[in-house]
Amino acid sequence: MTDGRRNIPFKRLFNPRSIAIIGISLSRTRGSGSYFLNILKQNKYPNPIYPVNPKHEGKEIEGYKIYGSVSSLPDDPPVDFAIVAVPAGITPRVIEDLGKKGVLFAHIFSSGFSEIGRKDLEEALLESSWKYGHKPRIVGPNCMGIYNPRSKVSFIFGASQNSGSVAFISQSGGLAGTLSRYGPSGAHPKFNFSKVVSLGNQIDLDLIDFLRYFKEDAETKIIAMYIENLKRNGNEFIRLLKETTQKKPVIIWKGGISERGKSAVMSHTGGLAGDIKLWRSMSAQTGAILVNDFMDLAETIQSFYSYPIIKTNKVAIISAGGGFGVMATDTCEKNGLIVQPLSDSSVDKLGEFIPGVNTNFSNPIDLGGAGFSIPVILKTVEILNKDPGISIIQLVSSPESYKIHSQTDMEAVVNKFGDAAKSLTDGKTLIATPTPVIEDKNIVLLRQEVGSLLRKNKIMTFNSMESGAKCCYRIWKYGNYLKKMKIRN
Amino acid sequence: MTDGRRNIPFKRLFNPRSIAIIGISLSRTRGSGSYFLNILKQNKYPNPIYPVNPKHEGKEIEGYKIYGSVSSLPDDPPVDFAIVAVPAGITPRVIEDLGKKGVLFAHIFSSGFSEIGRKDLEEALLESSWKYGHKPRIVGPNCMGIYNPRSKVSFIFGASQNSGSVAFISQSGGLAGTLSRYGPSGAHPKFNFSKVVSLGNQIDLDLIDFLRYFKEDAETKIIAMYIENLKRNGNEFIRLLKETTQKKPVIIWKGGISERGKSAVMSHTGGLAGDIKLWRSMSAQTGAILVNDFMDLAETIQSFYSYPIIKTNKVAIISAGGGFGVMATDTCEKNGLIVQPLSDSSVDKLGEFIPGVNTNFSNPIDLGGAGFSIPVILKTVEILNKDPGISIIQLVSSPESYKIHSQTDMEAVVNKFGDAAKSLTDGKTLIATPTPVIEDKNIVLLRQEVGSLLRKNKIMTFNSMESGAKCCYRIWKYGNYLKKMKIRN
Repeated sequence: MTDGRRNIPFKRLFNPRSIAIIGISLSRTRGSGSYFLNILKQNKYPNPIYPVNPKHEGKEIEGYKIYGSVSSLPDDPPVDFAIVAVPAGITPRVIEDLGKKGVLFAHIFSSGFSEIGRKDLEEALLESSWKYGHKPRIVGPNCMGIYNPRSKVSFIFGASQNSGSVAFISQSGGLAGTLSRYGPSGAHPKFNFSKVVSLGNQIDLDLIDFLRYFKEDAETKIIAMYIENLKRNGNEFIRLLKETTQKKPVIIWKGGISERGKSAVMSHTGGLAGDIKLWRSMSAQTGAILVNDFMDLAETIQSFYSYPIIKTNKVAIISAGGGFGVMATDTCEKNGLIVQPLSDSSVDKLGEFIPGVNTNFSNPIDLGGAGFSIPVILKTVEILNKDPGISIIQLVSSPESYKIHSQTDMEAVVNKFGDAAKSLTDGKTLIATPTPVIEDKNIVLLRQEVGSLLRKNKIMTFNSMESGAKCCYRIWKYGNYLKKMKIRN
Repeated sequence: MTDGRRNIPFKRLFNPRSIAIIGISLSRTRGSGSYFLNILKQNKYPNPIYPVNPKHEGKEIEGYKIYGSVSSLPDDPPVDFAIVAVPAGITPRVIEDLGKKGVLFAHIFSSGFSEIGRKDLEEALLESSWKYGHKPRIVGPNCMGIYNPRSKVSFIFGASQNSGSVAFISQSGGLAGTLSRYGPSGAHPKFNFSKVVSLGNQIDLDLIDFLRYFKEDAETKIIAMYIENLKRNGNEFIRLLKETTQKKPVIIWKGGISERGKSAVMSHTGGLAGDIKLWRSMSAQTGAILVNDFMDLAETIQSFYSYPIIKTNKVAIISAGGGFGVMATDTCEKNGLIVQPLSDSSVDKLGEFIPGVNTNFSNPIDLGGAGFSIPVILKTVEILNKDPGISIIQLVSSPESYKIHSQTDMEAVVNKFGDAAKSLTDGKTLIATPTPVIEDKNIVLLRQEVGSLLRKNKIMTFNSMESGAKCCYRIWKYGNYLKKMKIRN
């Protein structure tokens, strides 16, 4: 079964010269191949698409001619990829037809396999694919397939057309779709994808195959995954992870960690979920980054996508108001950052120019009312830049405060912070985290605007104090892992 | 010191017949009494306001005459409340003047006391207040004071004018301000306040005094607090908490739980933070609800404000897509809810009308593509309503799906869910939680619209699966605590 695993022509899966859709319906119901046809059309997939349904042979759908059988499909350009959306029971016959035709890959959308106890059907599928020399290689069944913004293959309505450097391997098509909309959304895109695959039941091509491919894929700089279960030996996965994290960060969200979650995994993708403790130890061994939920995954990807490695996990907090300082301190320390006492020299220098009323110069630094003065903030950053104990300088402020700063021109104000960020000594980082954000239309818009300006100025910015602390910790930890590995090797 | 603690005329603090502001500045800088004058004016405080500053005697500010001394203030109506914003060193003299005048309460805004090691100044303040029979009673120092939407006393720019039933006791003025904007914000207000107090250093009136008052306050149905430290014996607090939770829920966010957070508390409000373990055990003993951060506080208040007690913590999850089902299951189980296996009869009935492709009828229930059909969802809710093992029926869906449901009229669709919620058997609750939400302008607006419609229809709705699980667990747990207490007494 592992035969040929290293020479799978994945390039053709992600950039097929033509696509066949088996199981097209003229009534366009969800759950049929027409769903995929519509997306490919909307996405302007440039190569031929061949809808197949013997019942509708010769008719047209969305301007495409419907074929009556796989054998009657054109050979030039060759069919590299087929999307199979027929009842589970007839999928083995379809796979045999595709193999005979020489089709390289099939994505089986249909469900009704091991996730409902029909492991026999999965075995029949594999048997079919071996009849013609292990062709086609199978993605799924019970999954959404492939998204590649560059080649315009997609399973996501309204997904971004822009290619990026994040590869995402997901055992949930729904989550893959949501993440693929999250990254490129908003005024300033947070990240774009190189390739996305929804794995499903992984009866043939599995997590390890795709991880090995993305490890070498030049376009992919970050690998993220949502994983419910492993289909192969964990040791192979760990070896591969160790090699991969040397080249690029790997971010993993493990689904099915509670007892009931594990049985939900069995009914979802038909596999054993495994214990979260094993995943934690695997993460420690391999340098892979384990995250806890969807937003955590999205924000961690965004951080690795946008921000450089941080030298140490020691942070100085600047706030206007003591309560927010306490809150930021608790949040940093809870998530692995160290709120480091400032040097005596820093404390003295801060005391020289900041009034002593309603302020505090230990760490967290509470600037009180002066926390709304740009010169005071800039001077504080300058002083902290000379403090040898600090790597991360964290500005805690509300989105509204940027407006208070800048009655006239918010961009000019953020640019000043940007200049301060650029003038920092090597190894120091300026980050901006908001005070808790009210879900109000105007505040949300203001926050997006501030976020875009900050990102443009290469200031690390986060959705919350918590995501800021978590992401900085992870970036530092990954850098630290690489450093240790270099020393060891 | 405990003398007279039970007979403090708090009514006059929250509804003063006139207010004196000591330390007014004509240049209107932040940190002076002018800040408060502007807010009171903007808020249309209807009773007299007397600015005091000997340097500007006889001049006018914002249409108000400036007095030269406390002794020269009018006696009718009497000055019930003074806001003191003068340098810390002269506050004891001001308190003495106020006591002589018979002023009942003083809020000392000024900082520069025990939080920077000047405990001597706090002792001098108390001494001054005892010169005229413990008058005025002191709120603070080093705090923002009082907000009462009904009487229009306020320290928050743009705060809601609408009175509600949440009392908030806060050791951070900034957090109090943010929460006071959060509750009433958005298309549909989430909650409004009865009274808010920012405590500061608590040298005289403290947490326990205000808790005792809010316990009896007819307008207050929920008490929330952000606490950094206790100034009195913990046993007194625990006794009072036990009495209070019998009458109304008490929600507590403890600030300063990390080691560095504790020292930040010392510099912020000048007290010992205490160990979080003690607070956890206190919560278990008293039925008080301990929360972990700002959003957790805000969402828990909102839940107790809007939703009835839940009978059991057993939940059935309905999703369209297995990954979201796994995610919801992990989230519920992590936060104290039980994802209960359905009865055989429920599973059979679900299987009768939902197609078996891409679906699952265990719990979580994955409706697959049928999860976008309103009749299917309504029928599923009807079946779960007859399942004796379930109390909470949780709909997991994206804000966008409500739009997919309702090409024509979203309100009509949500009303149908509302009808389903109303027809539930006693003790069953319908809740709606979103799939992870993308921060995109249109999605945020859509989400607010959906949220308003759901709330109008008395469907419990939450910002995330996590807050849904946490809040349902807490509402159930509080009800359960009350039940146990009744049995015991």
